[in-house]
Amino acid sequence: MNKIVIDRNKETPIYLQLYSQLKRFIENGSLPPGYKLPTIRSMAKELGVNIITVVNAYRLLEENGYVYTRVGSGTYVCEGIQRDRDLIEDIELSEHREIPVKKGTINFASSSLNPELFPVDEFAELINRVLKRDRGYAFEYQDSRGYKPLRESILKFVRLYGIETGVENIQVISGGQQGIDVVSKALINFGDTIVVERPTYSWALASFQSRGADILEVNLNKDGIDIEDLEDKLKKFKPKFIYVMPNFHNPTGILYSDEKKEKLVGLAEKYETYLLEDDFAIELSFTETDVFPLKAFDKYDRVIYLKSFSKVHMPGLRLGFIIAPEKLVSSFLKAKYVTDLTTSGLMQRAFDLYLRENIWKKHIEEVKGVMRERFEKMKEGLTQLKSYFEFDIPKGGFYYWVKLKDNWKAVDFYQKCLERGLLVVPGDMFFGIKKEDNFLRLSFASCDVQEIEKGIEILRQVLSEGQNENEMYLPII
Amino acid sequence: MNKIVIDRNKETPIYLQLYSQLKRFIENGSLPPGYKLPTIRSMAKELGVNIITVVNAYRLLEENGYVYTRVGSGTYVCEGIQRDRDLIEDIELSEHREIPVKKGTINFASSSLNPELFPVDEFAELINRVLKRDRGYAFEYQDSRGYKPLRESILKFVRLYGIETGVENIQVISGGQQGIDVVSKALINFGDTIVVERPTYSWALASFQSRGADILEVNLNKDGIDIEDLEDKLKKFKPKFIYVMPNFHNPTGILYSDEKKEKLVGLAEKYETYLLEDDFAIELSFTETDVFPLKAFDKYDRVIYLKSFSKVHMPGLRLGFIIAPEKLVSSFLKAKYVTDLTTSGLMQRAFDLYLRENIWKKHIEEVKGVMRERFEKMKEGLTQLKSYFEFDIPKGGFYYWVKLKDNWKAVDFYQKCLERGLLVVPGDMFFGIKKEDNFLRLSFASCDVQEIEKGIEILRQVLSEGQNENEMYLPII
Repeated sequence: MNKIVIDRNKETPIYLQLYSQLKRFIENGSLPPGYKLPTIRSMAKELGVNIITVVNAYRLLEENGYVYTRVGSGTYVCEGIQRDRDLIEDIELSEHREIPVKKGTINFASSSLNPELFPVDEFAELINRVLKRDRGYAFEYQDSRGYKPLRESILKFVRLYGIETGVENIQVISGGQQGIDVVSKALINFGDTIVVERPTYSWALASFQSRGADILEVNLNKDGIDIEDLEDKLKKFKPKFIYVMPNFHNPTGILYSDEKKEKLVGLAEKYETYLLEDDFAIELSFTETDVFPLKAFDKYDRVIYLKSFSKVHMPGLRLGFIIAPEKLVSSFLKAKYVTDLTTSGLMQRAFDLYLRENIWKKHIEEVKGVMRERFEKMKEGLTQLKSYFEFDIPKGGFYYWVKLKDNWKAVDFYQKCLERGLLVVPGDMFFGIKKEDNFLRLSFASCDVQEIEKGIEILRQVLSEGQNENEMYLPII
Repeated sequence: MNKIVIDRNKETPIYLQLYSQLKRFIENGSLPPGYKLPTIRSMAKELGVNIITVVNAYRLLEENGYVYTRVGSGTYVCEGIQRDRDLIEDIELSEHREIPVKKGTINFASSSLNPELFPVDEFAELINRVLKRDRGYAFEYQDSRGYKPLRESILKFVRLYGIETGVENIQVISGGQQGIDVVSKALINFGDTIVVERPTYSWALASFQSRGADILEVNLNKDGIDIEDLEDKLKKFKPKFIYVMPNFHNPTGILYSDEKKEKLVGLAEKYETYLLEDDFAIELSFTETDVFPLKAFDKYDRVIYLKSFSKVHMPGLRLGFIIAPEKLVSSFLKAKYVTDLTTSGLMQRAFDLYLRENIWKKHIEEVKGVMRERFEKMKEGLTQLKSYFEFDIPKGGFYYWVKLKDNWKAVDFYQKCLERGLLVVPGDMFFGIKKEDNFLRLSFASCDVQEIEKGIEILRQVLSEGQNENEMYLPII
C-alpha cells in the first residue's frame, strides 16, 4: 500500500487526513477495486493513532461510496471509482466531430443552439456600428474587469432577474468555462475541498481537478441538492465553495425549488463558504411561474453568480460575466489577468448594444418558442419509450436525463446509437466517482423537430433490438 | 519557526526538501528579512539529518539570493525577498488607467501599439466577408485545437521563420497570456520547479505562481540566459520547463545569440526538459540580419513555441497559437478545454484570411517603419541622459531597460514621473525575488515621436531635480 503520512501539526483532523489519502489512492487506482483495507485495529497500530480515528475515516469512505463493508469480513474498495479519463476523451472528440461521425448524424449531444437560430444579422450590424464608432479602440486591451458600458448594461439585465448589485461587482469573462477557471484560480489551492452536485458538468469537474481540489459530490433530489448530506459535508470539510446549477441543471434539467434556494444561501452563510451558481439557461423556462437565480435570494453576499452568453445567445461570442461577492472582487480580477488579461473589446462593445437596445429580448422569445416545440416533441417520443427509460420532465433548458432499464450500459448504448447515426451522451462523464453507468443525457438544443423524430426512432430501434444479440443468454419470457 | 517536514519516502533529495521549505517560508514572510537561521549543527540535529544536508540546503539558499552568510556570525535572511504583490497591483491599475492618470499623460508603460496603428479597415472588411460567408458557423463552438484553415495558414506563416511543423502540432489560443496559462495547466503541478529568466514578464510569473510552482530565476547576460547557472539548476532541480523570451525580451529588449539558442536547445534535450519560448515581437527587428526563433533551432522537439498576435497586430484579436512538441499535444488540448473550450470563431476566421492573403505583411512593414523611428528617437533622448542611466541599445521590439544611477529607487522615480504626466514601469515587478530596485522599463510601443520627446523631457526634469528635495541632507558640492 502507498505510504500514509499523518501530520499532527496540521489543522485538519487526523481522521480527515487519513480519509483524504485513502480516497486519493483509491481514485488513482493504487488501491484497486476489491482491495481489502487493513483491519481497523492494524491500521490504527501502524499509524499510531486511535482506533476511533480509523473508524471515522473508514465510515466517511463508506458514506462517500469509496468502500463497502462486509460484515465479519472487512472493508473493501468499491468498483468503478478510478477516475475514467478515457471516456471523457472520447466524448471531447465526439463533441468536436473528430470521430468519424457520418454526415447527417443526429446530434442529441450538443448543448449549443443550431447556428440557424443565432442572431447573426443583428450582430453583424452591431459589430459594424462598433467598428465605425470605436475603430482601433475596439481592438485595444480593455479594462480587465470589462468594458464599463457593458457592465452597466449587465446591471440592468440582471435586475430583471431580481439581482441587485453594483457595477464594481461585475467581472466580464470570455465565456462560462473561463468563469469557472477564474473562480477556481482565485479560490482553490492544491488540496482544498469543494462540493459539487452529483451529477455535474464535466468540464467544471476537470477544472476543479486541474487545481488539485478534493471534490465531494452531493446527490441531487428532484428539487435540488440533498440539503442534509450537504450540511454534513459542510460541517466536516469546510469546503471553499459549492458549485451548483440551480436552474435547468446540466445534465439533469432539474430546477431547484425556491425553498431550497433559500436554504442553500442560509447554509453558505452558516458555514462561511460560497456558492458558485452557474446559470447558463435561466431564460429558457417552459413554466408560467417566474424563475429566479440563487443570487436573487442572496441576503449574505455568499453567491458567486456566473452567467454565460454562450448557450442561449451564441457560443462564438466568448462572453459572460461573474457577479462577485464584495470580498472576492479583487481576487477574481487578479485571476482574470493571469487567465487572458482581457476579453475581446469588439465583442464586449457589440454585446453592450445588444443588451442596451433590448435586441436580446426578441431573440430569446424566438428561441424559447423553438425550444418549447423541441422539448414537447422529445417528451412525446420519450414517453412512448418509457418502458425502457426512467426520466423526469424538465421545466426548462435543453436536457432530458434518462435512466436506462434492463442492465443497459450507457457506453454500449451510445455506441449502438452512433452506428445508426445518433449521437447521445453517456451519463458517466457527469460523475466524479463512476458508479452509475446507465444514464444518458439527451439534448434538444441543436435538433429541429424532424431530427428529433428521427433520433427517437433510432432510440426505439436500438432499444427494441436489445443489447443481447451477441451474448450467450436470451431474455426469460 | 514554521515546521519543516522531511519525507524520506520522497524521490526529492532531502537537502532539496529542506531548501524548498525554507525558501517558501522566506518568500511568504514567515522568516523575515534579517532573521538568523538556526546553526547548521542545531538544524541537523533537530531534523535528524546529516550536517552536510543542511550545508547543501543553506548553500543553495545563498546561491539563489535568499540568505547571506556573515563569517563567524551565521546565516541571515536577505532583504526584499518577500513577494511584493502590492506593487504588481499598483501597476495593474496604472496600466488600466484606473489610477488618476491625467489626460494627456505620456505612456512609456504600454506594451501595445497605439490604436491608430491597428489595421482596422482591413480587419473590418475581413470580418464582414466572414460574416457573409460563414454566418452562424462563425459563432459556433469551434474545434478546440483551432479552426483548421487558420492552422494551415499558421503553418505557412511560421515557415517564414524557419519553423517546420505539422498542422496537428498547432493549438490556437486566445492570446499569449492564455498560452502561458494553458502550458502551466498542462505541465505544472503544485510544487513543481520551473526556471525563468531574471528579469521576466510579470504575468507569466503570476501564472506560474498561481499553479503553485517553485520558480527559479537565472540571470540574463547580454546574449541571453546565463548558461552555466542554468545548467547547474537543471542538474539539481529537474524543472518542468524553462520560460524564455529569446527575441527582444520583455523587459530587457535582449536578443539571444544564435549560439546561445543552439546551446539552450541542447541543454533541454540533455536534461529532458522543455523550453517555453514566448515570441511576441520577432517581427520587429531593427537589424539587417535575420532573426530566427528558438523553435527553428529545435532539433529535439523540446521547444514549446508560443506566439501572440496581440503585440504586433492587435491585442483585441485575443488570438495566438502554440506549436506543441509531439508528446504534449493532447495535454495542451485538454488544458485548452478547461480554460475556455474554444477561441472565437469569428476572429479565427478573419485572421485566417489576414494571413492567407498576406495582408499582414503590409501591416508589419508599416509598423516596423514607425517603430524604428520611435526607437531612434528614444535612443537619442536617453543617450543625452546617460550620466543618469545605464542601458543597452535593443536590436528590436519595444523596450529600453535602464538602470538608474545615484541610488534612485525606481518606485520613487515612477511616482515623480507620474506627477509630471509620464507613466513608466518600475523594474521591480519583473523580478521574482525583489533585490534590484533601480530598473525602469521604458516602452516606445504606443507613443509617437512628439510624445517620446515630451516624455524624455520629463525624465530630464525629474532626474536633474534629483530625489532629495524633501530630505534632510543636501548634495555635497
